Amino acid sequence: MRFSPLLEQLIEALRCLPGVGPKTAQRMALQLLTRNRDQGRRLASSLMEAMDKIHHCQYCRIYCEMDTCDICSSPHRDPTLLCIVENPIDVTMIEQTSTYKGKYFVLLGHLSPLDGIGPEELGLNKLKSHFDRREIREVILATNPTVEGEATAHYLSQFAKQYAIKVTRIARGVSLGSELEYIDPNTLAHALTGREIVA
Amino acid sequence: MRFSPLLEQLIEALRCLPGVGPKTAQRMALQLLTRNRDQGRRLASSLMEAMDKIHHCQYCRIYCEMDTCDICSSPHRDPTLLCIVENPIDVTMIEQTSTYKGKYFVLLGHLSPLDGIGPEELGLNKLKSHFDRREIREVILATNPTVEGEATAHYLSQFAKQYAIKVTRIARGVSLGSELEYIDPNTLAHALTGREIVA
Repeated sequence: MRFSPLLEQLIEALRCLPGVGPKTAQRMALQLLTRNRDQGRRLASSLMEAMDKIHHCQYCRIYCEMDTCDICSSPHRDPTLLCIVENPIDVTMIEQTSTYKGKYFVLLGHLSPLDGIGPEELGLNKLKSHFDRREIREVILATNPTVEGEATAHYLSQFAKQYAIKVTRIARGVSLGSELEYIDPNTLAHALTGREIVA
Repeated sequence: MRFSPLLEQLIEALRCLPGVGPKTAQRMALQLLTRNRDQGRRLASSLMEAMDKIHHCQYCRIYCEMDTCDICSSPHRDPTLLCIVENPIDVTMIEQTSTYKGKYFVLLGHLSPLDGIGPEELGLNKLKSHFDRREIREVILATNPTVEGEATAHYLSQFAKQYAIKVTRIARGVSLGSELEYIDPNTLAHALTGREIVA
């Protein structure tokens, strides 16, 4: 015997969370039972509500419970600027910088033919309809600076080119606070070729 | 803006899980929404059911959804042997050894006056009623070999003494597979004083 059936079932269910193995799931289940039953109930109902009600913004594909997200419906956002990112969290990261006042488009992933993720899964049809409206002046490609992210950015730049839209890629270079000694050669190469005139 | 209200609420709720900070909670929420909505729903209902239906076995205080757990209701368990542990998980650990055929009593913690955990919180009243039945021949103290666990074990041994019950403590010594070089002096001292005759 290990635990009672219901407890076993809860431990198994907790393992759907990323980074949660059998031991962590056990600890979570027991701690909720011992100390946080009310919080456990709140988590359960919050989870159910979120799974059922949160869908994608019809324009930018960000997660939200309304049809249109706050950013897409805001009159203060420049509709001629479109920043394309891989994940919803990336929008949050860019918003934190307070330097961007345009709109977003979330791919919800990157091109990965082996996993069956092609242009359609990334919402290119939706993006096409944005481009068709001829409102966008510049597309900023802010996919991750990984092999997959770069490939996706390249694909998107070719795609946007057909619409004669200006396409930019976020600068790749050395991070603030880092030391050259510890920077990988590829990043350093990008920092050199992308050098800026200061005087 | 960060996320939509429902998503923010889910991220906040996930933080009740032990070891889950804001970043992990974000990752969990987004991954559930992106890839595992059905698993998320299953987790929600499992969580709700567990929080509502799991309580303590009326005899040993282990978590179970029935009034009496499998171990306490088993006719194959020696009712004269009682092993006292701190946490439900400890029962699982001892069961895995397949060397114990008695019953258990779970304290659900250890004595910790500063946190308001005294004998009553550890179910000593229930333990007293077990002792009063005069069925128990030996009590095995299997609380953790920590300062708190040792203090709790000491308290329990004094308590059991009043009933003239034999009290034993699990052996403290060197772990199998360890090297003396890396063992702390207190453990080594215990291993020496608790040495066994082999020939």
